[in-house]
Amino acid sequence: MHARVLIRPKAGILDPQGAVAERALGALGFDGVKGVRIGRLVELDVADPATLPEMCERLLANPLIEDYEIIESPA
Amino acid sequence: MHARVLIRPKAGILDPQGAVAERALGALGFDGVKGVRIGRLVELDVADPATLPEMCERLLANPLIEDYEIIESPA
Repeated sequence: MHARVLIRPKAGILDPQGAVAERALGALGFDGVKGVRIGRLVELDVADPATLPEMCERLLANPLIEDYEIIESPA
Repeated sequence: MHARVLIRPKAGILDPQGAVAERALGALGFDGVKGVRIGRLVELDVADPATLPEMCERLLANPLIEDYEIIESPA
């Protein structure tokens, strides 16, 4: 089973990397860009998708400051 | 318009961060995990979604070694 895990800073947590990207996009002439947040994308093949939340809690994400979203795909 | 950009190392490009995560998952007892690849997730609000590919080419991704996928959502 192929899965994607999207990991992003929780709402309210500062995201300096996103702030820099937002400013840089403006400097390049892209107007109307707001709310840029940068997180991580993990793609993997797992034998048992039921273990994915525990993988996120224990290794892939930092649950104190990050939210994660698991997207399973049959591919 | 809210959009997500998924950025991942191109096929064939080494991904040491993914390799380390894969080994660490095995060490934690998660069996049957393969093909771990780690990329970036960018979430942003844009006035004109037609500019997203150019943003990716010029700033958000490194098109030499990374693929990107743009997912627009009305939210």
